[in-house]
Amino acid sequence: MPMDSFNKKALAFMEKTKRSPGFICRKIWKVGRDDPRRAIHALKVGFSLTLVSLLYLMEPLFKGVGQNAIWAVMTVVVVLEFTAGATLCKGLNRGFGTLLAASLAFIFEFIAREYGKVFRAVFIGASIFLIGTSTTFLRFFPKIKKNYDYGVVIFLLTFNLITVSSYRVDDILKLAKGRTYMIGIGSGICILMSLFIFPNWSGEDLHNNTITKIEGLAKSIEACVTEYFNVEEPNSDIDETMEDPIYENYKAVLDSKSTDETLALHASWEPRHSVHCHKFPCQQYVKLGGVLRHFGYGVVALHGSLQTEIRTPISIRLLFKDPCIRLASEVTKALMELSGSIRNRRQCSPENITEQIHQALQDLDTALKSQPRLFLGTNSPYNTPKMLAMLTTTAKQKFEHHLSNMNTDSSSERKPKGVSDQTEKRVLRPTLSKLAITSLEFSEALPIAAFVALLVELVARLDFVIEEVEKLGRVACFKEFKHAGDVV
Amino acid sequence: MPMDSFNKKALAFMEKTKRSPGFICRKIWKVGRDDPRRAIHALKVGFSLTLVSLLYLMEPLFKGVGQNAIWAVMTVVVVLEFTAGATLCKGLNRGFGTLLAASLAFIFEFIAREYGKVFRAVFIGASIFLIGTSTTFLRFFPKIKKNYDYGVVIFLLTFNLITVSSYRVDDILKLAKGRTYMIGIGSGICILMSLFIFPNWSGEDLHNNTITKIEGLAKSIEACVTEYFNVEEPNSDIDETMEDPIYENYKAVLDSKSTDETLALHASWEPRHSVHCHKFPCQQYVKLGGVLRHFGYGVVALHGSLQTEIRTPISIRLLFKDPCIRLASEVTKALMELSGSIRNRRQCSPENITEQIHQALQDLDTALKSQPRLFLGTNSPYNTPKMLAMLTTTAKQKFEHHLSNMNTDSSSERKPKGVSDQTEKRVLRPTLSKLAITSLEFSEALPIAAFVALLVELVARLDFVIEEVEKLGRVACFKEFKHAGDVV
Repeated sequence: MPMDSFNKKALAFMEKTKRSPGFICRKIWKVGRDDPRRAIHALKVGFSLTLVSLLYLMEPLFKGVGQNAIWAVMTVVVVLEFTAGATLCKGLNRGFGTLLAASLAFIFEFIAREYGKVFRAVFIGASIFLIGTSTTFLRFFPKIKKNYDYGVVIFLLTFNLITVSSYRVDDILKLAKGRTYMIGIGSGICILMSLFIFPNWSGEDLHNNTITKIEGLAKSIEACVTEYFNVEEPNSDIDETMEDPIYENYKAVLDSKSTDETLALHASWEPRHSVHCHKFPCQQYVKLGGVLRHFGYGVVALHGSLQTEIRTPISIRLLFKDPCIRLASEVTKALMELSGSIRNRRQCSPENITEQIHQALQDLDTALKSQPRLFLGTNSPYNTPKMLAMLTTTAKQKFEHHLSNMNTDSSSERKPKGVSDQTEKRVLRPTLSKLAITSLEFSEALPIAAFVALLVELVARLDFVIEEVEKLGRVACFKEFKHAGDVV
Repeated sequence: MPMDSFNKKALAFMEKTKRSPGFICRKIWKVGRDDPRRAIHALKVGFSLTLVSLLYLMEPLFKGVGQNAIWAVMTVVVVLEFTAGATLCKGLNRGFGTLLAASLAFIFEFIAREYGKVFRAVFIGASIFLIGTSTTFLRFFPKIKKNYDYGVVIFLLTFNLITVSSYRVDDILKLAKGRTYMIGIGSGICILMSLFIFPNWSGEDLHNNTITKIEGLAKSIEACVTEYFNVEEPNSDIDETMEDPIYENYKAVLDSKSTDETLALHASWEPRHSVHCHKFPCQQYVKLGGVLRHFGYGVVALHGSLQTEIRTPISIRLLFKDPCIRLASEVTKALMELSGSIRNRRQCSPENITEQIHQALQDLDTALKSQPRLFLGTNSPYNTPKMLAMLTTTAKQKFEHHLSNMNTDSSSERKPKGVSDQTEKRVLRPTLSKLAITSLEFSEALPIAAFVALLVELVARLDFVIEEVEKLGRVACFKEFKHAGDVV
């Protein structure tokens, strides 16, 4: 019998191995197809490395440079990054770090030179301790951490290498010179590759990310409102949220802070690559990203009202379906217009964008005012008998449901404590608050009010987005807005 | 006159330089005081570097190791990180990367050895291109990028160094062996320093961060509710939000994703350092972090209703002050209880936590039901005359205010376009939508409903937090919950 199970396992394993090449191929294909620039970048790195190793492999070149050629290889491996900005940021950090460290090391060497061997050893040891400690502490300053962390590490590394070597090698200056040349050659190849051969710009990435984010928000809002007024009952499981298409659309916005800042940092090292503007306004993109996040939190709240435990009956929801959907579609249209204006690098016209929204707001207001009985409690004489009956039935059903659940729960509490009990309780318990909430009667009136208020709140936040996009248009010298058929 | 201004500038500059040492000192002091472990870490790095450079500086040691000692220095600079987990992660990545690369390089060397010089050069060039390209492409796979990025870079670096060197150096094996010893010594010192001398654990950081985040959320909720029912009119400027104490408290939660994941990644490399549990449950902390972020978005929405343009008059708000504040303080208490249970590493009791909340919910429900006239439009006969009068007056005032502003705005639009006009418009325009919103009458009833709904929604989300904290308590083998005076 164990032999059998072993056989089975072996078979399953073989099956898996047979399939895995296909799986790996598909995976590789997917990573490459998602962004073909990745494959190009990989080829660029391979090509640069081969180029730089020619220094070693070709006899006449090697005679010129000798063993130091290894430093050119090292530089290419470490410095050549995906985008031009990242390469420049790393390369320049490395360059300045090395230069500073070398200067400092030579000053120390100059001081120590006069004295005996023992004093020199002590002096070198002390300076390594001092520089090591202070440099490491420097890396904790947020500004330095953010912009120059790599440079500081290279500074420390180079300083130590030179100081320590100088104790044993006599002509340290010649050694340093040879290495510096090689690092120069390596850096040169990196810059050539990243700036001139199929360059990827961090600035472009930031620009495109911003567009994607705005469009994602637009899609989320539309989907949220459509689903809210959908007649079918939606699910309210938190784990499902993670796979939710609405969530997929706005999640990139929520966690965009670090990506945005890194891209902006790298973009700030890039030379101008557009004829339109003298400088890429990366800080404005970061600011716009912040406002978009703020807007995104509003969308999360809106999305939350889809998943909430307290629900307005669909018949009441339907009363506000049309004005709400209209308002949402106007907001969506406005966002699409904004993303289009960024995509086409032209300025937007806030008046055109907001006019329709204000009309939609007015309609919603009218719809709300025409239904005053909505916001009454169940004890109000204003309810139509039908609605009153419906409300009572729902409340009753829920209360009974609640009660029966409470019983199950309290009986489980009376059991002696143990692991199996704990897991059981865990399955039952999360529904406790939910039931407590659903059984309350106020629930019926609140959610639609909250939903409308959140929608209106989004309009208010949209203003900040429009403002920042407008500012971006000015700072980035986008095309002027033209009134006629220019609007996409 | 220009001389005068020059003098002034020089004076100002001198003034600045005089003050700057003090400023720098204060800055250094602040960075150190914020987290004294930073200073300790800096001293540790300095000490390790000095220790490792003794290999070079002391005659008997140097005789044993020779020039290769430089690799030990390099290893210490690059590998020794702030927390034990980060050091281990980097060190092991470096170690495995180096070993793999060395093995592969020797296989290639073994194949190429048989042939002539030219073939060898071509073979080496081709293998460098191939390995360079494929390794770089590998770095784009999200899983590898997240866990092994550094190892892959080191693999590429080492492979190139060995392959290229092997072409010129005859006894490459001896060279590699010498360097490997040195890297071993360097790594040994790093591990010793980070694991045994004042160790900082990523796991501890993750644990403490989680506590801080929960407490921050608790404070935010309390502050939000207090401010909402505050009689004074709060400001509603978005730039102010950034400095807002409420915002300060929850902002750490919102952008915590990347920090959490990095800490968890590093923590997963750490050996167990507690007697209680066999493994640090870092993934559960990440999951709890996700739920806390989800909860945090709810707090953002609540905070948003403080800053919204549509306001319920304070007299109406005051009607719900007590039950709302009670519910909020119960939620706050629950969060504090949860953070306390994590801090003291004991399991929590969900029943104790949620019982009071349900009572508070019931009270809020009663309060809402006792004020049915609240949710009426202005045309309902249910309003007390006084409230009706108040509402009409407010609406009128707002409408007039709105009208006068609309006029200013449209007159500015009629001006010819130009830069100065644009800036002027920018100042006026953001208020457009705000006014459109405030002038609508439905506004009066909505916001308090939205506020209450959001508060109730928070209670629903609190359940997920409790569930995850409970799971954490079980997975991390926290102390059992005791019923008597154990509750903090």
